[in-house]
Amino acid sequence: MAEHLADLSVRGLDLVDPSALSQDAKALMTEECEKIAPFDEKKLEEILDLYIRTGIPVHSPGYMGRQFSGVVPLGGVVEFVSSVLNQPSSFYEAGQLPNVAERLMADELNRFIGWEPGRFAMVTTSGGSLANLTAMLAARNQKFPRFWPDGAAGLEGGARPAIAVSDDVHYSVSRAAGVMGIGEAQIVRLPLNGRRQISIEGARAALAAAERANLRVFCLVASAGTTSVGAFDPIGALADLARERDIWLHVDGAHGASLLVSDRFRHKLRGIEKADSLTWDAHKMTFVPAPCTLLFYRDREASGGAFRQRASYVFDEKPDIYTELDSGDRNFECTKRPMIMSLWVLWAMYGRALFAEKVEYLCALTQQAYHLLHAEPDFETVHRPEANILCFRYRPHGVAEEDVHALQVAIRNRVKLRGRFFISKVNVDGVAALRVVMMNHEITVDHFRMLLEEIRGVGRTLHGTHWNPRRNGGCS
Amino acid sequence: MAEHLADLSVRGLDLVDPSALSQDAKALMTEECEKIAPFDEKKLEEILDLYIRTGIPVHSPGYMGRQFSGVVPLGGVVEFVSSVLNQPSSFYEAGQLPNVAERLMADELNRFIGWEPGRFAMVTTSGGSLANLTAMLAARNQKFPRFWPDGAAGLEGGARPAIAVSDDVHYSVSRAAGVMGIGEAQIVRLPLNGRRQISIEGARAALAAAERANLRVFCLVASAGTTSVGAFDPIGALADLARERDIWLHVDGAHGASLLVSDRFRHKLRGIEKADSLTWDAHKMTFVPAPCTLLFYRDREASGGAFRQRASYVFDEKPDIYTELDSGDRNFECTKRPMIMSLWVLWAMYGRALFAEKVEYLCALTQQAYHLLHAEPDFETVHRPEANILCFRYRPHGVAEEDVHALQVAIRNRVKLRGRFFISKVNVDGVAALRVVMMNHEITVDHFRMLLEEIRGVGRTLHGTHWNPRRNGGCS
Repeated sequence: MAEHLADLSVRGLDLVDPSALSQDAKALMTEECEKIAPFDEKKLEEILDLYIRTGIPVHSPGYMGRQFSGVVPLGGVVEFVSSVLNQPSSFYEAGQLPNVAERLMADELNRFIGWEPGRFAMVTTSGGSLANLTAMLAARNQKFPRFWPDGAAGLEGGARPAIAVSDDVHYSVSRAAGVMGIGEAQIVRLPLNGRRQISIEGARAALAAAERANLRVFCLVASAGTTSVGAFDPIGALADLARERDIWLHVDGAHGASLLVSDRFRHKLRGIEKADSLTWDAHKMTFVPAPCTLLFYRDREASGGAFRQRASYVFDEKPDIYTELDSGDRNFECTKRPMIMSLWVLWAMYGRALFAEKVEYLCALTQQAYHLLHAEPDFETVHRPEANILCFRYRPHGVAEEDVHALQVAIRNRVKLRGRFFISKVNVDGVAALRVVMMNHEITVDHFRMLLEEIRGVGRTLHGTHWNPRRNGGCS
Repeated sequence: MAEHLADLSVRGLDLVDPSALSQDAKALMTEECEKIAPFDEKKLEEILDLYIRTGIPVHSPGYMGRQFSGVVPLGGVVEFVSSVLNQPSSFYEAGQLPNVAERLMADELNRFIGWEPGRFAMVTTSGGSLANLTAMLAARNQKFPRFWPDGAAGLEGGARPAIAVSDDVHYSVSRAAGVMGIGEAQIVRLPLNGRRQISIEGARAALAAAERANLRVFCLVASAGTTSVGAFDPIGALADLARERDIWLHVDGAHGASLLVSDRFRHKLRGIEKADSLTWDAHKMTFVPAPCTLLFYRDREASGGAFRQRASYVFDEKPDIYTELDSGDRNFECTKRPMIMSLWVLWAMYGRALFAEKVEYLCALTQQAYHLLHAEPDFETVHRPEANILCFRYRPHGVAEEDVHALQVAIRNRVKLRGRFFISKVNVDGVAALRVVMMNHEITVDHFRMLLEEIRGVGRTLHGTHWNPRRNGGCS
């Protein structure tokens, strides 16, 4: 592992044919026998080596493709301890320190959110998708108290429950609408402005139209860092709009809430103190092993509404000083990994500065990359980056409008297969763009320059005589 | 850690006042400053020591209270590697070996389930509650194809969607009904027989009554190992009943599916090959760090129905040999921990025998404990254990019927506070019972004998002149 972490070579993905990998993995498995096989250190080494070699290299400067973090290694040590101790954290008595650490960490981070200290609440949960669903359930159950017992079928007559989301919202939010019985057709899409944020005027009009269509929008989901381009919706103005209409404002800050710890970037979430709830993935820009998601509520009372039931084998008859810290009735999981521990230990050991410095470095690096791109005539930027996500296109002279999409897809795939850099792609206004996400402080602007050269090289080949997007669909 | 694992002393819980623990924890936190604090090894040691000392001691023979497993320590090493590599496993390209390992492990375990090899499917997900919800969503979306787009409100007229569950089902199942817009009031409770399994005759009558009440039961959830007493519902007969009525049969085997790996106990899940889906928590009786949940489907097609959407930044345009292994469209999470790795590595290293032996030892131990109890006149058994959960009451001569409940609650709490043993309690037929769960092979029948002495000692004191349950509510 030490060797792996010390290897700072520029590597992308070494994509192996699954059936070949499957053969290799199978060869490492003990033949079934009636007895427990003796411990074979060499086999373990081979397994771990295969594991390290075949994954995305999140610690290499060649990895710029996803929001998976290059974690602080000490976090891994804490996870080792957590895994062996195996103290679940939904109940104080099972994991005392994790429950206390959740409270301490909540207080630390709430200093940057700004909610009333005795009144706000935080629970940890297994990933941003689950946090978004949980918050949306709390909203649904608050605005429609009969939804939990009766189901949506109990709401006969009256307006249909609906959810308003940004056109660029993460798929987990529309998925949640399908899961929780709202229905995907009851999603009101709010238009974006030129910076790919929710447009306030557009939102106002869309909400009015929804009302005329007999929809009762009870929850509005804003993004603090959209997944596609990292845009920050105008939280303060949306909160005002939501309050006017008795709408719960949930902020999906899975990616971008971590900017709150930085004095320089906190302003991106201006107005967050007026929101009702906030999802914060510490496994993204707070650099701890995944998943470690924090779900904050402005009002502790409201956090109790997401789930409702009793079970005599876990919930005690009368609350006491111990059970008062239990979160089992407020998070989805029964057995919950004590995910807070790696975050809290890193915070306790190094302080806020560790996270603030890393966030600031990565956002500044992304700005530099943007300016670099701007000076290159054969590249096109599609937005001005607000955090550490940057989307752009390779678009040299002579590429027809209708070929731009397929060219980006082909470049992305070819770059991936070459294995030096790992980048992703995203559709922006229906046309593919190349996407880099800076999640690792070992990346410098020189690495980004190398990436542009790689793209240019690949792009030139593809754009040459050998490539016809309409023949092979751009997936060569 | 080695020291901690080598300590086999009999310990229960050292329950600390949260505010005192909070003080201790806070004292270990770096004072905020503008710079990253230097690494302080002593502080890290103190933190980890506090962590170890204050949790449930899952590796001590005094711990018999919950379904949290005394994990195989090598699993913790794998988690360390996983945490640092940070390869999420919803997408093949991000975590190649975890995705391949999922397939290999699914094939290994399906040998004991018996589904058609090319047709069944398995996904991993973050805990049994999420697996149950996912399976129930697949059922809902299959039986009501318009539920996903339209929500329950779109089902105007006709029968109301309903779910049938055992009276002893885990709370996550009724919670799922509330979450997914079915409504808790549309839960049809199936009566139990004397062994606390679903009664087939009772189920038949309850389903007929539900139909008369204009409910359309689309999913029946059976338990393979109820949480309360570890009872196994008659899966084969329930599957026949479900098939007659076009009902999806989901088996919540969170606790008990692990018995499938044992030739001696596999028969407890007889009929599983006729079910539609199965939840299997490997972090319970398969002894890996939590969570590691496997959700099996008999029919791969059906597994695609739980969630429905597209997102251009993660889902590729055309499936290929790589994306064919992606599970992001079939599990709830976007970023998913490669939880399969600790299970697969242990299986690859030691083979099935490791798990089978441990399961068999624990189930046999529980039988022994049952027979021991049976011979004690001041104890009452409330069921015959089928696996490794045993519920009983301390009920010496002279305890009035109406005091039995409060006495058990008081005993459980006092035993917990004394800190030698950690046991739980559960209500059986409305009356509290003491509950032990054998999750650690270091426990012997002698430890159980010591526990009975402890209970007897505590019980005698409580039952003496100093204790009046009607005065202090039994929570002394």
